[in-house]
Amino acid sequence: MGDCVNDVFYGTDYHSHLGTKRAGLAFYSKEAGFQRAIHSIENSYFRNKFEDELPAFNGHIGLGVISDTEAQPVVMTSHLGRFAVATVSKIVNIKELEKRCIDKQYGFSEMSMGNINPTELVAKLIAEEKDFVSGIRNVQELIQGSCSLMVMTSDCIYIGRDKLGRTPIVIGKKGGAFAASFETCAFPNLGYETFHYAGPGEIGKITADGYTKLKEPNDQMQVCAFLWVYYGFPTSSYEGINVDECRHRCGEALAKNDSVNADFVAGIPDSGVGHATGYANFTHIPYKRPYSKYTPTWPRSFMPQSQAQRDLVATMKLIPNTAVIKNQSGVFLDDSIVRGTQLKDNVKDLRKAGIREVHMRIACPPLTYPCPFLNFSRSRSNMDLATYIAMHELEGKEERDMAVYSNPDSEEYKQMVERIRLRLGLDSLKFQRLEDLIEAIGLPKDKICTHCFNGSSYF
Amino acid sequence: MGDCVNDVFYGTDYHSHLGTKRAGLAFYSKEAGFQRAIHSIENSYFRNKFEDELPAFNGHIGLGVISDTEAQPVVMTSHLGRFAVATVSKIVNIKELEKRCIDKQYGFSEMSMGNINPTELVAKLIAEEKDFVSGIRNVQELIQGSCSLMVMTSDCIYIGRDKLGRTPIVIGKKGGAFAASFETCAFPNLGYETFHYAGPGEIGKITADGYTKLKEPNDQMQVCAFLWVYYGFPTSSYEGINVDECRHRCGEALAKNDSVNADFVAGIPDSGVGHATGYANFTHIPYKRPYSKYTPTWPRSFMPQSQAQRDLVATMKLIPNTAVIKNQSGVFLDDSIVRGTQLKDNVKDLRKAGIREVHMRIACPPLTYPCPFLNFSRSRSNMDLATYIAMHELEGKEERDMAVYSNPDSEEYKQMVERIRLRLGLDSLKFQRLEDLIEAIGLPKDKICTHCFNGSSYF
Amino acid sequence: MGDCVNDVFYGTDYHSHLGTKRAGLAFYSKEAGFQRAIHSIENSYFRNKFEDELPAFNGHIGLGVISDTEAQPVVMTSHLGRFAVATVSKIVNIKELEKRCIDKQYGFSEMSMGNINPTELVAKLIAEEKDFVSGIRNVQELIQGSCSLMVMTSDCIYIGRDKLGRTPIVIGKKGGAFAASFETCAFPNLGYETFHYAGPGEIGKITADGYTKLKEPNDQMQVCAFLWVYYGFPTSSYEGINVDECRHRCGEALAKNDSVNADFVAGIPDSGVGHATGYANFTHIPYKRPYSKYTPTWPRSFMPQSQAQRDLVATMKLIPNTAVIKNQSGVFLDDSIVRGTQLKDNVKDLRKAGIREVHMRIACPPLTYPCPFLNFSRSRSNMDLATYIAMHELEGKEERDMAVYSNPDSEEYKQMVERIRLRLGLDSLKFQRLEDLIEAIGLPKDKICTHCFNGSSYF
Amino acid sequence: MGDCVNDVFYGTDYHSHLGTKRAGLAFYSKEAGFQRAIHSIENSYFRNKFEDELPAFNGHIGLGVISDTEAQPVVMTSHLGRFAVATVSKIVNIKELEKRCIDKQYGFSEMSMGNINPTELVAKLIAEEKDFVSGIRNVQELIQGSCSLMVMTSDCIYIGRDKLGRTPIVIGKKGGAFAASFETCAFPNLGYETFHYAGPGEIGKITADGYTKLKEPNDQMQVCAFLWVYYGFPTSSYEGINVDECRHRCGEALAKNDSVNADFVAGIPDSGVGHATGYANFTHIPYKRPYSKYTPTWPRSFMPQSQAQRDLVATMKLIPNTAVIKNQSGVFLDDSIVRGTQLKDNVKDLRKAGIREVHMRIACPPLTYPCPFLNFSRSRSNMDLATYIAMHELEGKEERDMAVYSNPDSEEYKQMVERIRLRLGLDSLKFQRLEDLIEAIGLPKDKICTHCFNGSSYF
Repeated sequence: MGDCVNDVFYGTDYHSHLGTKRAGLAFYSKEAGFQRAIHSIENSYFRNKFEDELPAFNGHIGLGVISDTEAQPVVMTSHLGRFAVATVSKIVNIKELEKRCIDKQYGFSEMSMGNINPTELVAKLIAEEKDFVSGIRNVQELIQGSCSLMVMTSDCIYIGRDKLGRTPIVIGKKGGAFAASFETCAFPNLGYETFHYAGPGEIGKITADGYTKLKEPNDQMQVCAFLWVYYGFPTSSYEGINVDECRHRCGEALAKNDSVNADFVAGIPDSGVGHATGYANFTHIPYKRPYSKYTPTWPRSFMPQSQAQRDLVATMKLIPNTAVIKNQSGVFLDDSIVRGTQLKDNVKDLRKAGIREVHMRIACPPLTYPCPFLNFSRSRSNMDLATYIAMHELEGKEERDMAVYSNPDSEEYKQMVERIRLRLGLDSLKFQRLEDLIEAIGLPKDKICTHCFNGSSYF
Repeated sequence: MGDCVNDVFYGTDYHSHLGTKRAGLAFYSKEAGFQRAIHSIENSYFRNKFEDELPAFNGHIGLGVISDTEAQPVVMTSHLGRFAVATVSKIVNIKELEKRCIDKQYGFSEMSMGNINPTELVAKLIAEEKDFVSGIRNVQELIQGSCSLMVMTSDCIYIGRDKLGRTPIVIGKKGGAFAASFETCAFPNLGYETFHYAGPGEIGKITADGYTKLKEPNDQMQVCAFLWVYYGFPTSSYEGINVDECRHRCGEALAKNDSVNADFVAGIPDSGVGHATGYANFTHIPYKRPYSKYTPTWPRSFMPQSQAQRDLVATMKLIPNTAVIKNQSGVFLDDSIVRGTQLKDNVKDLRKAGIREVHMRIACPPLTYPCPFLNFSRSRSNMDLATYIAMHELEGKEERDMAVYSNPDSEEYKQMVERIRLRLGLDSLKFQRLEDLIEAIGLPKDKICTHCFNGSSYF
Repeated sequence: MGDCVNDVFYGTDYHSHLGTKRAGLAFYSKEAGFQRAIHSIENSYFRNKFEDELPAFNGHIGLGVISDTEAQPVVMTSHLGRFAVATVSKIVNIKELEKRCIDKQYGFSEMSMGNINPTELVAKLIAEEKDFVSGIRNVQELIQGSCSLMVMTSDCIYIGRDKLGRTPIVIGKKGGAFAASFETCAFPNLGYETFHYAGPGEIGKITADGYTKLKEPNDQMQVCAFLWVYYGFPTSSYEGINVDECRHRCGEALAKNDSVNADFVAGIPDSGVGHATGYANFTHIPYKRPYSKYTPTWPRSFMPQSQAQRDLVATMKLIPNTAVIKNQSGVFLDDSIVRGTQLKDNVKDLRKAGIREVHMRIACPPLTYPCPFLNFSRSRSNMDLATYIAMHELEGKEERDMAVYSNPDSEEYKQMVERIRLRLGLDSLKFQRLEDLIEAIGLPKDKICTHCFNGSSYF
Repeated sequence: MGDCVNDVFYGTDYHSHLGTKRAGLAFYSKEAGFQRAIHSIENSYFRNKFEDELPAFNGHIGLGVISDTEAQPVVMTSHLGRFAVATVSKIVNIKELEKRCIDKQYGFSEMSMGNINPTELVAKLIAEEKDFVSGIRNVQELIQGSCSLMVMTSDCIYIGRDKLGRTPIVIGKKGGAFAASFETCAFPNLGYETFHYAGPGEIGKITADGYTKLKEPNDQMQVCAFLWVYYGFPTSSYEGINVDECRHRCGEALAKNDSVNADFVAGIPDSGVGHATGYANFTHIPYKRPYSKYTPTWPRSFMPQSQAQRDLVATMKLIPNTAVIKNQSGVFLDDSIVRGTQLKDNVKDLRKAGIREVHMRIACPPLTYPCPFLNFSRSRSNMDLATYIAMHELEGKEERDMAVYSNPDSEEYKQMVERIRLRLGLDSLKFQRLEDLIEAIGLPKDKICTHCFNGSSYF
């Protein structure tokens, strides 16, 4: 059986756009047993942090994870033997489950930002049962929120996708190897092809020889729309739908409903680029780059820098092209408006560079509800959402009928959008309609979680 | 007078796309005198290499340089006082000038890759004369090849553009400060506006208060076409002409003469992107990204890595998007074909990802003559040029009439292009015509150096 | 209550002579809760590895540990609340205790070199009981081998010394703070004075206000003789007895029984220095340095280097002084002879530098039995001991009466010593007699573990 | 011819005790020509700074230098061909020589702390002449102060010792190689034996085959006494006299004239250790270590740290041993008293640790005159010398008869020493007498520079 260290190392690296805090690798080989390393990646790239250790690893089976929250993978020694666990999760009822474990005298040996490590909790819930499949079912049943996970034993990797499929797991295949991944963009350069999109709640296992389904997927699905609109790398696909193609359709849909006259179309880098080319291709307004990213030396702003340094990076990374901007009218596309702070700065810079008109088009509806399901949502606390600030200006009280603000045909919605437009200093502003977004994604409406747009949800 | 350390530091950083080997900074202040640092940037970014030293620098006047050749700036102590020099040059007659100096007993204290340091030579030629303007004239007269330079004294910065204007110098201005730069992309984020494009052979000086012309520009100019087609950062301008806009016009010109039927248009990242959007905007064929660069962790491949590592970076940095590529026909734009090696690999990867047709369009004519004027030319030794290999296959001898291969209407040109097409595995291949390139740039034909396309040149 | 971060940080650093693999720090403050960091120190100093994180720590209570074995401290969340544990231990019956825990469904979340982490096991054994004192007693009763430990809660630090006192714990005191340490050398530069030497099996707790004994010490003690002879830093004391003074007495004792005529006395650096000055002071033979350590750049050989690099460091670190050595006769002192390999090389170097006579004097008796009690013993597997090789040459069989080789008056002992002398190329060789060693230490004979010299032991 | 890179690299490293600012290496091979690297060593060890570059170097001839002043070696291209120069020098008349060169239109391309680089000046003075021997003579004649130098050409290394031999050059030899060094401690571990001590003003050249004297040494010599007393590594020798043996004789000489009653003798680490063992061996007062250096992690305090950090290192590096100190009386030896600041702190710490009596013995006479000959002298500006402060307290005026303070039998000398004793808080204080120091060194009085003790000097 071949060594998988390189595949796991580079495959994990291709998830770096999803996190900047912590990363971990685990391998198993008969000779060396379980091996694990976890490092902070706040100050340097994943690859730089781990590459010195690579020669020391060996294994025909391995697991890697990039995480913005807890240290992972956890390696547990239990009556099921030794196994490694990595999760993408948000455990809403974590306090209750912690108590449940401590009452049973299972102590926790790991910490995560002053609390227990959620992945260690998941490992303990797995080890409560008599085998791994029952253990993963146990996790799926007990956890409120969401949890997709992988478990590496000395024989195989078990995968368990979140019961409502909020986050994805995709199986890849090449000669002599199978792999499971969050992002399919990790596959082609390592020689893998997409083999199977695991369904909601599906449990299975992979070995070098194949993938075996151990629990059928559930009918219900609530996959997060932002995987396509924002999080996913352009070349990735989920549920068989490519990210960049979906963004083109988002841009086209916005274009269909639009009649603005402009000299050029542009994307806010990098989140609006796919949407913008879709818009430009449909309208035949020239696609241009009013900003260029200075990537030779501003590739990423590491986290622990001071706020002053982060602001500097934000300012310096994008160079305006006056030749494109000056006295021109532009349509700008972006994925969504969260707080709007950075967008406001962008607009100010464009005005300074002499732009005549700025028309902003947003690939999804306004964010009106915070997300209770995922740790990495665009829509976190609603207090600082641009929509909330607008609503608050309009109504001046904490309690209000949110539903009307989710309805693009209501007067309230129009007033809210107008307020946001004014605050950001735009000449015009339009958001995608929910039905157009759903059509652009291309899944049935009840398979996509639209909670942050309209509050609808089921558990 | 204010401190200029930050402006020089960040302004130099914005020239990092032009070199990856060495960089240097020099400052002068009354209190601290001349201060200088030079570092290798082969293993880490310019900013990382210098930022620890920044607090130790202070000055109201400073100079920075990124260089792929010699260590710079040189600080010379002479009868003109102490001064720092930075150059962008190729000194064809360096051996002869070295002898001239040694005969006069001026020893050289610097080395550059086993030879004398060309910038130290320039400094000595300046110091031969009684003042800086005569000294810079001396350099312009003696040097064969090209040389643009800046000289920092304790009072001011002298600039001297190459006598034929092969490389640019542009003056920028903001409240209380003047700056000189190769790339205008360094200006906007530091608050500068373009103030004056120095002409060929122009000598001048800047202080905090203004720019003074000390020698009028020459009439003749031979500015390098590749500044726009390839080298320049998209947001930069030379002679008042913006790089990205020029690339759009290159793409449009190719589109006008083209009738290919395709599903999408794409640029070879990053060199073909501006050309490709110009082409797409004109033809209304959708602009798409069949490749995405994985910038979160593959920002740059540092030089001293092994060839194996550089190949790895080349392979891993670009992720193909099968959803865009599979069974589709694409028009691909690039700036030029040098050896064609990388392009050949790209085409292979596209075929592997299932593309139906690959149509390549090149923003300039075939490179048929090596460049004797610049060290950073696209067209170096002609031996490994794709054109040369094709010609050699066709004729099988060293001596041939090159002129016919520069004529796009000749049979020989067509056969050469067909040979290149076959070697690269393309469905079709077209190069820009020289007159279209010149029109896209927008300067009179006799102001642009077209040597690498047709061998024409004057000194 | 004051912040203890600096005291814990520098105090832990002063244990760096005891380990070169791993180190950890844990702190508790009301505002920040439990904080912990663990790093490998194989490639860089403890201080360098942790100092960047220091500003992020805060606490009025903290714990630090240097370890050649498992990652520590472990932070456990249990029905006793959250607590951190650090140990100095060798758990002979670890497999049996691991099974005991897994049978009770306490999974292990940590790994140490492919096995469970012994400190996590200790933490689980503590958490089996209803309070910390019972928990520490549980550890003392269940573990075979040895274990001294500290437990940090949000209120206090519990200490529990190994039941036979094989390894020490000493309490220090300064205005407003109490501390517990393995090495008293950590105290004076941080302002602490030695307050109390905890006895064998003693359990107690420290707070900022004082030390409270919670379990009386046992009568029996088996403290390791090598704490004084080899491991301890010269300025440390255990059981009230200073290390360097003990070494002087060792040297004096050897001198009393000696009559060799020599030009100088020297210690094998650094392990023999204290012994040598004791010898020189008694005999009035001049103390000299035939070797000087080149500390300006060879301070420590980090572990993961290749064997070739480690050999290089060994060779380069010590510079011989021919002026001292040539044609002279020297008495050399060292703590013990383990394999003798390095000593043999030293003697060769001395011969090369022209020494006339080399007389070796060893501060303890020959090592004839491997240590089953400590992980950091001088006397590990007996197979490669110099004594074993000598015995094997003499008898040529695996089974033999070891007792006679521990008796310095037996013929067999004399023959063994003579064999070692010959193998090392010495002019004369003498080992300390056991009763002289015990007298030099100054504790009653039955309080000191002499197992590696004569096999005597009790558990 | 073999490769010398390792020998030059490690040999240069063995000079690290002489400087902490800058270091450089140069090599020549036929294939690669001249190669050079210079780095700051303020933040990391010489070896760490250069070892990554070692594989890139190759040469059968090489030069390395550690310097606290200018960047070296300088590589000059001139009518003598290309050559590298390294110097140990203090050029008192540098301004005059700079003018001389600039008047001849030799510009300077290097800078050193805002001035011209003295080694570049030396290189230019060499290149004034028609061959290297005349060039080195030119340097010896023109320079006021001192200058020993080495010149590497593509054929050989020329050495030129300072005309008065203030600083040493020693030739070493092994099979197939010759080397020149400042410190003979660099020889034995690299397999070299001392072959020849170059005399004052001697010029010679080494090749792989031998050493050729090209100019006979001068009769007059003024070698610096502090080479033995303080600067030299213990195992080094100059003029055939070993450093540590000389220190033993210094200690013995102090002991002979002393009658203090004490419990132990100790050296101030590390400068007083050799002196102290000499004293102890003579008096039979036990030699002990009241302090131990914590070398496992405090090997060196790098320069650019803040003063606070340097003070911390000073405080933390030495651990007092109360068991040795408390209620005892000690004789402490040190090489000299410069400002006395650190000694004063040491005495305070000893008092805090409970010492009864501190008797200080100094291996050389009081420093009363600043050194005009060397850059690395113990006796710099006299303003902050402990002697000066004492004299100033006694006389209260700037002008005074210094000679009386150099006479140990004068009343003024006694009062000065008493003042210093009081300021440092000592129970007794004695300095070496000059004639005893000279006898301990063992050279004729007129061969040793005693300027800092009695102001005598000739140029």
